[in-house]
Amino acid sequence: MPDTATEFRQMRRYRAAADYLAAAQIYLRDNVLLTEPLRPEHLKPRLLGHWGTCPGITMIYAGLNRLIRQQHVSIMLVTGPGHGAPAIHANLWLEESHAERDPVLARTGGGLAELVRRFSWPDGFPSHLSPEVPGVIHEGGELGYALATAFGAAADAPDRIVACIVGDGEAETGPTAAAWQLNSYADPATGGVVLPILHLNGYKIASPTRSALMSDSELTDLYRGYGWSPLIVDLSAIDYDEVDAEPDRLLATGLDAALARIREIQRRARGADDTADATPPWPMLILRTRKGWGLPASIDGTPLEGTFHAHQVPISDPQHDQDDLTALEQWLRSYRPDALFPDGEPCADVLAACPPADQRMGTDPATNGGVLRRELDLPELTPYAIEVPEPGAATAGATPVLGPWLADVMRRSNERRDFCIVSPDELESNRLEAVLEATDRLCQRQPPGYAEHLGPHGRVLEVLSEHNCQGWLQGYLLTGRHGVFPSYEAFVSIVDGMVNQYAKFLKMAAEVGWRAPVSALNYLLTSEGWRQEHNGYSHQGPGFINTMLTKKEWISRIYLPPDANSLLVIMDRCLRTTDKINVVVAGKQPAPQWMSLSAAREHCRAGAGVWNWASNDDGDEPDIVLACAGNIPTVETLAAASMLRRDAPGLRVRVVNIVDLLTLAPPDRHPHGAPSSDFVDWFGRRAPVVLDFHGYPSAVHECLHGRPDSDRFHVRGYREEGTTTTPYDLLISNGVSRHDLAIEALHRAPGWSSRAGELADRYATERERIRRDLRRTGVDPPEITDWTWA
Amino acid sequence: MPDTATEFRQMRRYRAAADYLAAAQIYLRDNVLLTEPLRPEHLKPRLLGHWGTCPGITMIYAGLNRLIRQQHVSIMLVTGPGHGAPAIHANLWLEESHAERDPVLARTGGGLAELVRRFSWPDGFPSHLSPEVPGVIHEGGELGYALATAFGAAADAPDRIVACIVGDGEAETGPTAAAWQLNSYADPATGGVVLPILHLNGYKIASPTRSALMSDSELTDLYRGYGWSPLIVDLSAIDYDEVDAEPDRLLATGLDAALARIREIQRRARGADDTADATPPWPMLILRTRKGWGLPASIDGTPLEGTFHAHQVPISDPQHDQDDLTALEQWLRSYRPDALFPDGEPCADVLAACPPADQRMGTDPATNGGVLRRELDLPELTPYAIEVPEPGAATAGATPVLGPWLADVMRRSNERRDFCIVSPDELESNRLEAVLEATDRLCQRQPPGYAEHLGPHGRVLEVLSEHNCQGWLQGYLLTGRHGVFPSYEAFVSIVDGMVNQYAKFLKMAAEVGWRAPVSALNYLLTSEGWRQEHNGYSHQGPGFINTMLTKKEWISRIYLPPDANSLLVIMDRCLRTTDKINVVVAGKQPAPQWMSLSAAREHCRAGAGVWNWASNDDGDEPDIVLACAGNIPTVETLAAASMLRRDAPGLRVRVVNIVDLLTLAPPDRHPHGAPSSDFVDWFGRRAPVVLDFHGYPSAVHECLHGRPDSDRFHVRGYREEGTTTTPYDLLISNGVSRHDLAIEALHRAPGWSSRAGELADRYATERERIRRDLRRTGVDPPEITDWTWA
Repeated sequence: MPDTATEFRQMRRYRAAADYLAAAQIYLRDNVLLTEPLRPEHLKPRLLGHWGTCPGITMIYAGLNRLIRQQHVSIMLVTGPGHGAPAIHANLWLEESHAERDPVLARTGGGLAELVRRFSWPDGFPSHLSPEVPGVIHEGGELGYALATAFGAAADAPDRIVACIVGDGEAETGPTAAAWQLNSYADPATGGVVLPILHLNGYKIASPTRSALMSDSELTDLYRGYGWSPLIVDLSAIDYDEVDAEPDRLLATGLDAALARIREIQRRARGADDTADATPPWPMLILRTRKGWGLPASIDGTPLEGTFHAHQVPISDPQHDQDDLTALEQWLRSYRPDALFPDGEPCADVLAACPPADQRMGTDPATNGGVLRRELDLPELTPYAIEVPEPGAATAGATPVLGPWLADVMRRSNERRDFCIVSPDELESNRLEAVLEATDRLCQRQPPGYAEHLGPHGRVLEVLSEHNCQGWLQGYLLTGRHGVFPSYEAFVSIVDGMVNQYAKFLKMAAEVGWRAPVSALNYLLTSEGWRQEHNGYSHQGPGFINTMLTKKEWISRIYLPPDANSLLVIMDRCLRTTDKINVVVAGKQPAPQWMSLSAAREHCRAGAGVWNWASNDDGDEPDIVLACAGNIPTVETLAAASMLRRDAPGLRVRVVNIVDLLTLAPPDRHPHGAPSSDFVDWFGRRAPVVLDFHGYPSAVHECLHGRPDSDRFHVRGYREEGTTTTPYDLLISNGVSRHDLAIEALHRAPGWSSRAGELADRYATERERIRRDLRRTGVDPPEITDWTWA
Repeated sequence: MPDTATEFRQMRRYRAAADYLAAAQIYLRDNVLLTEPLRPEHLKPRLLGHWGTCPGITMIYAGLNRLIRQQHVSIMLVTGPGHGAPAIHANLWLEESHAERDPVLARTGGGLAELVRRFSWPDGFPSHLSPEVPGVIHEGGELGYALATAFGAAADAPDRIVACIVGDGEAETGPTAAAWQLNSYADPATGGVVLPILHLNGYKIASPTRSALMSDSELTDLYRGYGWSPLIVDLSAIDYDEVDAEPDRLLATGLDAALARIREIQRRARGADDTADATPPWPMLILRTRKGWGLPASIDGTPLEGTFHAHQVPISDPQHDQDDLTALEQWLRSYRPDALFPDGEPCADVLAACPPADQRMGTDPATNGGVLRRELDLPELTPYAIEVPEPGAATAGATPVLGPWLADVMRRSNERRDFCIVSPDELESNRLEAVLEATDRLCQRQPPGYAEHLGPHGRVLEVLSEHNCQGWLQGYLLTGRHGVFPSYEAFVSIVDGMVNQYAKFLKMAAEVGWRAPVSALNYLLTSEGWRQEHNGYSHQGPGFINTMLTKKEWISRIYLPPDANSLLVIMDRCLRTTDKINVVVAGKQPAPQWMSLSAAREHCRAGAGVWNWASNDDGDEPDIVLACAGNIPTVETLAAASMLRRDAPGLRVRVVNIVDLLTLAPPDRHPHGAPSSDFVDWFGRRAPVVLDFHGYPSAVHECLHGRPDSDRFHVRGYREEGTTTTPYDLLISNGVSRHDLAIEALHRAPGWSSRAGELADRYATERERIRRDLRRTGVDPPEITDWTWA
């Protein structure tokens, strides 16, 4: 090992090389090492990139590499300011992580030129971090999610340290603010460590950041209040070229102290020291730097270094403005590229600052989690399934039946600890309490009062922040593990922005050859709107389905199992899939059950199908098809069918149930789209279809688009009506009660509307009577659940 | 004024009355004052409500009422834990706010019985706070948004104090965490005050809250770090019946101190004291209580008071379980309803704790902001419009043209200060910098370094948190003011959850007779995906349109002005509307301009229309309709039309542009739906329509649903493809370049596909050549913007 003075000199040179490369990526397409005078034709015609955060990111990267070299720790990096991609690319190239993924990016003069050219170029690297970049598990566009992702990556990985750079712009976001509290969940014994580094360079696009307006004591108070032990490393007074200041040494001192503290905490948590404080304050660093550090102080009177003007492309028009060109060349040459890359390749002393090949952050296998992923050991479903001697002859809640199976999935993964459940304080409320017999809610702190199922090594994360749940799970999945996210249906829209980004990550990752598939992100949406009659209108919102339908057709799946056994089958399927976002909507309340396990398997395999036992069309073209998707629509549709068979015996009714919503899409538009022959088998060729859907009808229309004669589908669903009332009243107000469905069927069935007027009127009268009664009694009439369809 | 001992005794009696009423609402339908022994038939058949937070809410309510009575301050209340509705109802009834809105809820025995019956009952009050409840400006279902809403309500209202109860469950959410920092924006001179009261009762549904796991010093550090001066009022050791403990006095001491501090800060900020610290730490209270305070400690071995078991309906089955019934009666009688309501009406000493009628929180006009709302003084558009001598003969960016008009809207509202702009650090980036000539970015703190357009009295809120922007604006609008929210299009989905709730608020508010209309919430979505070719895939996402399409048809409007003058017309319209959520999508980059101001007025009035100058069908049924919605699609569509007219002269092409997306919907389904006659005038009767849409094609299909022959519409749009590349490459990858549109038109036009094969091939070849070239040069070929359609 070199003496420390040499080491820090090497690090400075390393940083100069990386900073130069970052700037070069933004500006140059040719003459990338300035071996000749800079001319306009050497510049990219469009300058796309963000310089401001780059020098700070490289400062941190170099500091972490020193830890890796000296202390042989395994460190993974999550970079919040993803627009600092040029810095990450520069470091990846210097440490040869790029070369490992793509030999064209070898650490040679040619590789350097290719790297510089490829950045922000059509068919090249995007301007922000993305799955194309080695070592990345976080789409670096939308800000706010890095820290929660880092916690998920560290969970259940005891040897892992996840360094997480949080930009001070990002620190203004809600999701980041909420994620600071995740330290009180992370388990120092069974899990790894998150080392947050708040990169405080003072500015966002056009203003000072909130952090920049805070004093050191406020910053310290804030993060201490969040349970951290903050350490401020202030480099903001140091000129980039100031040789004696040794900023790397200052940061190294902070990082060394942080690592020592981490080791101490782990030793206590993992040893026999029962007196160990269960939640010691983990270290975090606050790194003050000048934004765009290394730039000229100003150009033409516009201040640059240390201001928001350094955020993006700091010298804006060198292609056309000679002064700008001169300033740019001067700035670039200030890094002395000739001395850093004398023969087109970096000097040996620059490279001395790199980590050994097997410890590079850029090639950490966990950042390509699919390679670490192992299939879950899923229990066979039979013992968990409920007996359904005939359709409707059993009553159960779907999630309470799923619970014991999930509990055993948890138990079977006890040793590997590669399965987790995240939920915003809703596991019990969503009737999955059986899971808490198998594991605890994760919590490092002693509750001051009464508590149940809380423990330091639990594998259920319950925090009242959907953002935290989502970020944690993303980090967990992308590092090769498995998980489920049960949520109230209406509130999962809180993470619409996050899931948009995650779907983009999956899409791009699938296009990257070296990325291995990761486990699906599984949402279990329950406490669905139709049974939020007690919590009211704010809790009723099925729009997440619509959001997911905007994604690439091979990413999102939407399942609406109508009963308990079908939920078992679907969840079993979801936990086996990769590179997907599965949305499963299921009930938690006791409800009639339709399918034995084997019937459920067959039905789910097809995705949809005719329920002959509820139909009386004898396989001929029916007069009317009553179709349903969702647990509550299934009950109402079967009830409507039963009413019609009783009261309109000549009417040939077919009942179709849909589990996999995307079977409705044409097969040329969606991989799950059912072949035309199946579609005709289900829905006939001409019969009108009254389809009762769990969510907004528009979601079904969207799926059906492109099917011939989709106009014969009359879709009902949630039409944004609701309040606190009874379940049946909620159905009536949205026009999806069994009475409404039966009336529409009578109107739609060809040739029946004239004959059926009287019956339809009777149904309407009955519906209004029920409504009057329930306003008086406060409950649905008992007979309303007392129906026979057989 | 009574002596203090009497006063606090009265407050205790007041709280007992309110707590009793809250419990009664959850349980009783009859015998509401227990004038006879409690029997099962007195109970509601379904018990729906949340008790746990109620006693604490009433504690706070009573404490605030004391401030109002004694110090004659005007206080508005925003209640985060909206599931504590029974407590709010009880207080509203006692102070006769309920009676003012609805005489049936008079402060009489009959009114009391009605209140109790109406809660959580079909057609009655929802179980959560909602617009039906007087004094409410915050949908109390989804947690996290109370604090930002409170800040918006206080902004520009110097005499207002907005007390905000933040539940400790809610305090775990990201949006709440981010909202604490809003204190550094709120202006003590021109604005009011937010007084947050963190209600720390220790538990959410099933676990301790994060706050409950924190020590007093951590809590103090945290909120001090956020710039507050926190004061802990700890009542958690006090038994509900402990006469000497005087919890009201403890809270009063805290509230008095807070108010004194508020007054001191305001005096300094509003006086001539130039040395005043610009951002003194505002006070906040942390109130520790026992959850469900007043309940029995346990029942049947299950702990109740002070645990999560008190969260919802604490004694669960009194209808069927005799022990539960006995326990319930015992508990209810512990409040001594006979002594509180001796003749069915509250005693005088109970009522002594109420505020005077004109200062009740429940009837503060600001909580029904529509009554305070005044029309904006909007400048006539002409001076701001740009000259467009003929279509395409001018070039401009749309938002840069809008900027000066918005700046003058700002100037004209200088005195009233009832217009604000909120934006996540994007005003300049979205090219609305002209606004900053009229006002500053709001900021109370001295930036440590260089800054521009930052000032303590600014009326632009820029904070890198869409959640904060949205909450602030909601609070501002609901208290009777106006505003605009410019945002990057892709990132507005961050607030999907919030806008879902806000749309619900508007829907319910419109059904409440006494609520006056409030100004529309106006989103200006720019930096749209098609011009995020430089920021890449993460910045491309038009899904907010899909989210808004799920709302009630009279709430959401979606406008896609194709150029600058039409943007002026549309924004002018939006700022005049009420009870709406307007989504306006517009470009910021220089682009060809199509319409003079008068043409834009006419086009926007119709919502859509044929552009004859770009068509060659001479008013006959065309061979093909090229339709477009959105600024970039308009350019491409016109280019495609121009190419076809040049290269396929016999082809009759009609160009239709759509500004108001919802004109596409059938008029029986949507109030903006164009009459069939207009629809036929635009799109003909038979011609295929190739429609290039700004967003996901599904949004257009959803609008068209129900139009006859909607199958002839072939919609293209964003298909979730993108990266960092050139603008034209981004279009090509989504199949919406002018070449793609022209090719599809040739394929679709009846009788043309055989003749047109060669031409289509030529276009395809040209497109591929362009793609190859741009991969080499990094820019779109210059000729690509050099086209003539005339």
